[in-house]
Amino acid sequence: MWRALATHGNGSAQLLSTIEELAAALATEKTTVWIDFHQPSPDEVRLLADTFALDPLSVEDCVADQHHPKIDEFDHYLYLVVHGVQAGTLRGELETVELDVVLTKNALATYRHDEMRSVAEVWRRATSRDGFLGRGPAQTLQAILAAQADHYIDEVESLEDETEQLEVELFADRPSKGFERRVFDQKRDIAHLRQILGSQRELLHRLGRGDCHMIPARLRMPFRDVYDHLYRATEMLDTLRELTMALIETHLSLVANRTNQVMRVLTTVATFILPLSLITSWYGMNFRGLAGLGIAHPDLYVLASFAIVAVLMAFFLRRRGWL
Amino acid sequence: MWRALATHGNGSAQLLSTIEELAAALATEKTTVWIDFHQPSPDEVRLLADTFALDPLSVEDCVADQHHPKIDEFDHYLYLVVHGVQAGTLRGELETVELDVVLTKNALATYRHDEMRSVAEVWRRATSRDGFLGRGPAQTLQAILAAQADHYIDEVESLEDETEQLEVELFADRPSKGFERRVFDQKRDIAHLRQILGSQRELLHRLGRGDCHMIPARLRMPFRDVYDHLYRATEMLDTLRELTMALIETHLSLVANRTNQVMRVLTTVATFILPLSLITSWYGMNFRGLAGLGIAHPDLYVLASFAIVAVLMAFFLRRRGWL
Amino acid sequence: MWRALATHGNGSAQLLSTIEELAAALATEKTTVWIDFHQPSPDEVRLLADTFALDPLSVEDCVADQHHPKIDEFDHYLYLVVHGVQAGTLRGELETVELDVVLTKNALATYRHDEMRSVAEVWRRATSRDGFLGRGPAQTLQAILAAQADHYIDEVESLEDETEQLEVELFADRPSKGFERRVFDQKRDIAHLRQILGSQRELLHRLGRGDCHMIPARLRMPFRDVYDHLYRATEMLDTLRELTMALIETHLSLVANRTNQVMRVLTTVATFILPLSLITSWYGMNFRGLAGLGIAHPDLYVLASFAIVAVLMAFFLRRRGWL
Amino acid sequence: MWRALATHGNGSAQLLSTIEELAAALATEKTTVWIDFHQPSPDEVRLLADTFALDPLSVEDCVADQHHPKIDEFDHYLYLVVHGVQAGTLRGELETVELDVVLTKNALATYRHDEMRSVAEVWRRATSRDGFLGRGPAQTLQAILAAQADHYIDEVESLEDETEQLEVELFADRPSKGFERRVFDQKRDIAHLRQILGSQRELLHRLGRGDCHMIPARLRMPFRDVYDHLYRATEMLDTLRELTMALIETHLSLVANRTNQVMRVLTTVATFILPLSLITSWYGMNFRGLAGLGIAHPDLYVLASFAIVAVLMAFFLRRRGWL
Amino acid sequence: MWRALATHGNGSAQLLSTIEELAAALATEKTTVWIDFHQPSPDEVRLLADTFALDPLSVEDCVADQHHPKIDEFDHYLYLVVHGVQAGTLRGELETVELDVVLTKNALATYRHDEMRSVAEVWRRATSRDGFLGRGPAQTLQAILAAQADHYIDEVESLEDETEQLEVELFADRPSKGFERRVFDQKRDIAHLRQILGSQRELLHRLGRGDCHMIPARLRMPFRDVYDHLYRATEMLDTLRELTMALIETHLSLVANRTNQVMRVLTTVATFILPLSLITSWYGMNFRGLAGLGIAHPDLYVLASFAIVAVLMAFFLRRRGWL
Repeated sequence: MWRALATHGNGSAQLLSTIEELAAALATEKTTVWIDFHQPSPDEVRLLADTFALDPLSVEDCVADQHHPKIDEFDHYLYLVVHGVQAGTLRGELETVELDVVLTKNALATYRHDEMRSVAEVWRRATSRDGFLGRGPAQTLQAILAAQADHYIDEVESLEDETEQLEVELFADRPSKGFERRVFDQKRDIAHLRQILGSQRELLHRLGRGDCHMIPARLRMPFRDVYDHLYRATEMLDTLRELTMALIETHLSLVANRTNQVMRVLTTVATFILPLSLITSWYGMNFRGLAGLGIAHPDLYVLASFAIVAVLMAFFLRRRGWL
Repeated sequence: MWRALATHGNGSAQLLSTIEELAAALATEKTTVWIDFHQPSPDEVRLLADTFALDPLSVEDCVADQHHPKIDEFDHYLYLVVHGVQAGTLRGELETVELDVVLTKNALATYRHDEMRSVAEVWRRATSRDGFLGRGPAQTLQAILAAQADHYIDEVESLEDETEQLEVELFADRPSKGFERRVFDQKRDIAHLRQILGSQRELLHRLGRGDCHMIPARLRMPFRDVYDHLYRATEMLDTLRELTMALIETHLSLVANRTNQVMRVLTTVATFILPLSLITSWYGMNFRGLAGLGIAHPDLYVLASFAIVAVLMAFFLRRRGWL
Repeated sequence: MWRALATHGNGSAQLLSTIEELAAALATEKTTVWIDFHQPSPDEVRLLADTFALDPLSVEDCVADQHHPKIDEFDHYLYLVVHGVQAGTLRGELETVELDVVLTKNALATYRHDEMRSVAEVWRRATSRDGFLGRGPAQTLQAILAAQADHYIDEVESLEDETEQLEVELFADRPSKGFERRVFDQKRDIAHLRQILGSQRELLHRLGRGDCHMIPARLRMPFRDVYDHLYRATEMLDTLRELTMALIETHLSLVANRTNQVMRVLTTVATFILPLSLITSWYGMNFRGLAGLGIAHPDLYVLASFAIVAVLMAFFLRRRGWL
Repeated sequence: MWRALATHGNGSAQLLSTIEELAAALATEKTTVWIDFHQPSPDEVRLLADTFALDPLSVEDCVADQHHPKIDEFDHYLYLVVHGVQAGTLRGELETVELDVVLTKNALATYRHDEMRSVAEVWRRATSRDGFLGRGPAQTLQAILAAQADHYIDEVESLEDETEQLEVELFADRPSKGFERRVFDQKRDIAHLRQILGSQRELLHRLGRGDCHMIPARLRMPFRDVYDHLYRATEMLDTLRELTMALIETHLSLVANRTNQVMRVLTTVATFILPLSLITSWYGMNFRGLAGLGIAHPDLYVLASFAIVAVLMAFFLRRRGWL
Repeated sequence: MWRALATHGNGSAQLLSTIEELAAALATEKTTVWIDFHQPSPDEVRLLADTFALDPLSVEDCVADQHHPKIDEFDHYLYLVVHGVQAGTLRGELETVELDVVLTKNALATYRHDEMRSVAEVWRRATSRDGFLGRGPAQTLQAILAAQADHYIDEVESLEDETEQLEVELFADRPSKGFERRVFDQKRDIAHLRQILGSQRELLHRLGRGDCHMIPARLRMPFRDVYDHLYRATEMLDTLRELTMALIETHLSLVANRTNQVMRVLTTVATFILPLSLITSWYGMNFRGLAGLGIAHPDLYVLASFAIVAVLMAFFLRRRGWL
């Protein structure tokens, strides 16, 4: 499936519906064209390759799944692979969506296998705002990348909120069930996001530095702005990574502390009761000649020995600082 | 809300109260102007944008919350986002306050949403000391950044003091309640402060290196001095980060040690008492033909077997190095 | 054992069977030759050294096991050592296979001690596709390296799958036997693969940068493409390394949690039963004068004291948040 | 308090006692002067500032405590802040002493608030050896920095010895009391020393690289030599840091191991004795109709059941690999 | 003690026995001399210093113990400090041997306090192979450094073997005694070796890069080859460091797991036996009016209650997933 927009100068964008219209628009001077492929058929892939005279390498990269952002500069076009974060995934299963971009002097081709929020947003702007597309294909690309960066920031901020939630739970009296699992899922998403953002940031760095002749000089600052957003996102992720690690370590420390307190209770109970049981057990022996079985108030006598043992034990435990 | 100061040459600073006075002051040669916006209304934002002919990107950055220090150089002004540490926050909830700065040849505009100690301090100096503002807008900016850096150092030093306090508590006989929570809060603030200081330091590095044509060459050394302060703060934070990690690890080691000692007490008590209980329990059996029930001094007999068992157990425990 | 292919221009590749044929092919202009040595005899090593006038250092490197990728540029040839991942090894025993390469203007010599999937694949393509070899020895080398990189990616992806499998098992109710061992084996293979890939990536970086005069400029992009694949593989490995470390830490945390629960059960049981046993044991004493032995319904009386003790204990345990 | 030495050419050094003598010496050509300030009064600070026409920034840096080594180059002097390790501090409380240095073509001014071993040593050499001071102020500075570096190496070596001592104690049968505290103190001093040495090393790197026009070219090698010493010290510290971390981890492992063995003893004792107690307790029941109470040799009968239970338990424990 | 070899052109090497012969050889054009000092007397040190007109700094470095590889280039000689690994040290006590080298256009001086395998091997080659020494002093130096690098590789490989041995023991049913100690010793040696190799590698990098005018251009590749070996050794060490850390962590995890299983056994035994004991203890009470003491088959009655309790407990434990 493909759809295309064309605009002449600063006018409003026209939807192109046939290949002939597309070819005509591309051939017209001062016309900016944006063609967007979504799950294209082999015929459409050939259309893309022929229209922009793509290198076989770029075609192959478009068709294959590329999990790694990349930038290839050719004489007559710039080829980019970027990734956006997939909307609505569960924590621990963060996925990215690949977007292939071909940028020429007067045209932008976007190519993707999945729905992509940033493309949808910018397409809406391009169709509704006069003159938006007319500012050139590079600026349209910048708008897409900026929308993507905003979604990354949103994702990082939701990771930040969840980390704070986990902190609250960590110190709650009753740790919630599945705490470790949620921390682990958090850690996994942070690691995956950090990996993809690191490469994407590098790519934006090159676009903003003015390395690519398809990016006009006046757009360097806006591209650098996207770079700044991604930079901020990676720094936040690094801080989150550190805090998540601290969550795991502190959790271990807290569990060890609780086990220690459980052990103290057990030891205190056993240390008091076992010696007392030995005393009662002593007088439970069936020896006929056992001393003292005939004394007047055996209860008081045994209670007195209980008290002596208990005082000794309490003294002993207090010396260890437990009571 | 806005307020402005102007000075001609080395004279005392005059408070400007109307937009007309401001425009006049900016238009006069050799006059230095400082205009400070605090939670500005949309009208005031437009005033700022128009007065300094700001790029839309800068205006957007001013209005939005920017959690990341940045520097954008335009032909006729320098745009900065810096952050100061918010005063009086609780440990574990460290926050920063954003300050947007526009610097031109003869004017300084500061823009913030919150109260800011460094701006307040330098404003006081600018109104009370003749000739302070007259040294130029870049030097006024340097004074604000230097005050900010001092507050950062203060914050880092209070983190240092708290770390020492935590160390004392770590090795105290009775660890204070909530120790882990305080270490974690410490760790979080260190991580957040490290993130913001890292970027701010980089920004000061660029200002002190002489990259920006709005900073006169004679001010490079003072800006480098601020950089040196931030550098020192980040190095102290790195050391604190390492020590906080060591706090957690050592705490875990200490808890494990204490659990070990608790277990030894329990095991020692059980190892002595349980076998003795078995002996008394033996003679508590109701078998009519049980041997020995009629002996003369059963107490001595049983105590003797107690002694034998206790000696055997003591020997066994001593061999393991416990007694 | 050696085998060789030669092609003139874009024709199909001819198998050369004698040394004379080989010498003739190498001497003919516009002929591309690929000679592949497998576990060569000393005579064959001499053939290689003489045919390409190799430096003694290169010959020594070929014969010896080189565990480290390297690149040596000489005036008339380029010498490479690269490594492929050995197929079919068990997890925890990942091995690499060394491939020595000599590249000249019109010939490619490959030299290996073991079977190598990438060489076999490209050899098949060279013999079956007309014109494949005719594109030059550098392009043939690129095809081998690309095949190798694909196998690396496969290996990393199978590590990724296994890590996900380990994650599932980590949070399963009954951790599978040998979990720690499998995590450790995983960690070892990741570390080994990361070491070899780091060096190999560096090597490809140099080939793609255009440092080597044996690599024609038009092949820089394909070599950079192999570099991109290896780069992606190392980034994935770094993420896996982090997740594997998190697996170990989370596992420790989970075990500590389980031990804590086991201890609670034990302590709860002991705290309830031991005091009750003390009561029954008390009335088991054989004192003739023990109070209460003659009361009407001793069962109810003892059960009542049981209830009092149990309520006290339950109250005590509930205050600690256990019940 | 100040004191000064002056020498003309290669002669012996003369102690200067008045400000006039100092001024005269500084004004004489080919005279080298060293003036050393110790806890100077405000008047003396003014003397320093005036004599060397110091920038206000340098004066402020002298007076304030600077915890961070720094280097500021001015047209007519070089300003340095360096730190030496304070002698005789306890482990865990390592402190540094600040030394401010002003270096001109023919004079060296040193400024400090505390006693400093390196200054005292070089002063002794300067007064006792003819021609020492005459080699120029830069060489005198190099001698001070070299002495400081030696003291750093001494400190690092004593940290190395203590780490070895801690290793011995770690594996001793009875871990010494306060082991964790000592490891933590060690870790703290290593972190502090690493922080200060990192900056100082950077400073020496700049002095040895020939960046500073006050350092003659022939002295680059000696300054590089000091740099080499500091480099070695930091590398040793990095190794120590790693080993100290390993100390904590191994300690935790050892404690866990010991707890495991304690638990086995407890479990083994309980597993053997508790079932036997159940048997004796069974025959302690007062049922009139309990089977077997009248058998001939109850001792043998019960001992036999003891043996059966013990064998079963031993079999069970052996299967778990404990006995 | 010193010994020297000299060769004229490509002839065999002659042993020089007097200082006069040495001076004569050094003065002859096209003669290559190698002089090797072993634990030299002060007179011999002076001989070295005078013969090569050494800088006092180099003499001092020779005499003192230098634990850090270094390279100093002078106009007429190159001064190196390198280290070899000492043969035959126990694990955990790895030591290095220092070798000082002076390299001039036609002479090589080696200086050491201890026996050194690499020097001995190359000396043997120089005396037995004609023409070996004649290839020049730089090539002789390269041979020594290559031999040293081989010994480093050997050491790293033996560390690799021992790590594999430790892995096997880690997962063995009965962990060998002293496991932690051996891991720690391993870790220490890896850290020490990594420290020394890091610096030595840097040194070889400079020799191979062609920075030093005493190294002829044709020898750059052989020196780079030594660098490659050291590079490989450090990469292997980094992998080993990671695996050793994983050993400690996995060990802790395994111990925690075993403690968990021990606790389960204890808890299971106590949870079954303690309630049963309470029942027998109940009927052991001496109350005259205790219900049920007169029933017909008390054994069956009590066994039935045993069964009920055991079933309840088994149900409870099974619900927790333990049985």
